[in-house]
Amino acid sequence: MSDDNALVGLLGVLAYGQLVAFDRLAEDARNAPSLDGRVALADLAAIEIGHYHRLARRLSELGHDPWTAMAPFAPALEQFHARTAPSSWLESLVKAYVGDGLAADFYREVAAFVDPATRELIGEVLAEAGGAAFAVREVRAAIESQPALAGRLALWGRRLVGEALSQSQHVLAEHDALMQLLVEGTGDINGVGALLRRLTDRHAERMSALGLGG
Amino acid sequence: MSDDNALVGLLGVLAYGQLVAFDRLAEDARNAPSLDGRVALADLAAIEIGHYHRLARRLSELGHDPWTAMAPFAPALEQFHARTAPSSWLESLVKAYVGDGLAADFYREVAAFVDPATRELIGEVLAEAGGAAFAVREVRAAIESQPALAGRLALWGRRLVGEALSQSQHVLAEHDALMQLLVEGTGDINGVGALLRRLTDRHAERMSALGLGG
Repeated sequence: MSDDNALVGLLGVLAYGQLVAFDRLAEDARNAPSLDGRVALADLAAIEIGHYHRLARRLSELGHDPWTAMAPFAPALEQFHARTAPSSWLESLVKAYVGDGLAADFYREVAAFVDPATRELIGEVLAEAGGAAFAVREVRAAIESQPALAGRLALWGRRLVGEALSQSQHVLAEHDALMQLLVEGTGDINGVGALLRRLTDRHAERMSALGLGG
Repeated sequence: MSDDNALVGLLGVLAYGQLVAFDRLAEDARNAPSLDGRVALADLAAIEIGHYHRLARRLSELGHDPWTAMAPFAPALEQFHARTAPSSWLESLVKAYVGDGLAADFYREVAAFVDPATRELIGEVLAEAGGAAFAVREVRAAIESQPALAGRLALWGRRLVGEALSQSQHVLAEHDALMQLLVEGTGDINGVGALLRRLTDRHAERMSALGLGG
């Protein structure tokens, strides 16, 4: 098990994540109730595919075939999306905002443990995501006009986190190098716990931003 | 009926065309049998959404709401895609190449009749399409290894053209300004005939490039 294994794994899971995010956002865009919504999600999808290329290029530069690096993570990522298929436009928006935010926080944390060039690439890829303002505005407006929606959407947010944690555990259990990167990077198992707390705190902040806090 | 009507109609149909092309290419990408194919179609989809923004921005610059300009053309464009839903990956590729090529030729012809700034924008939007090389390579390779595929795909190509012409006629019949732009631009009804012949010739060239000629 080498640092290289962990790095390739990290880039692989991140790259495949962009591909499935493209699929999901493009599909959600089709179900948008307004032109603005349709275009906003299609834009997000287009950004993800740009990110995919940058990550795949980095894998190639490191001498690794992108597909080989991504394939081990495909089942967990596809399963996450299959288990969290939105049943409404508002659920799509919450997922786009909360789900992508959570993933971005996680990758940003882990990026601290890798080489500077890769860290920089990951930082850039995550910084460009955007689109959050649109989701926040739409969801807040919907809840204001129909407060009864809040309970169900808050539950949806919790389900997204639950599924994300569950799939992440599967991934880490099967990919020793990534698990080791995480444990060594954070210091020890307490460090992993602290990282999880930071992720959960930031998730709570996002739910509050949507008007789904508390 | 003013020139402005025709221009807004042209930009509107072109813009909505990019939106539905995004949807369709993103959906086809999901059904790709290979990573290369998936990424190639997702890239095309991302390009279309970029084009959409440029056309919508031009409509806004001209003082027109993009959605209002696009809405009259939505039914015909959605119907074209609903009637030509690919039933296989190769049909998706033929449609991406032949369908988009035909649309690009048509818009390029019509762009000759509008103001220079709009003409330039349309030319740029159409030039960036690309992705053709991938489709040609894949379809040719498939036919070489399974020559029996050629007959069915050739039929598919003819169906695409038939549906495109049929939907174009609906559009022109209902949008006087566009019809007038076409007739005045080409000179007269014979000019329209000549334009159609040019489109058909170029379509035949594309079918040959795919190995589906004759």
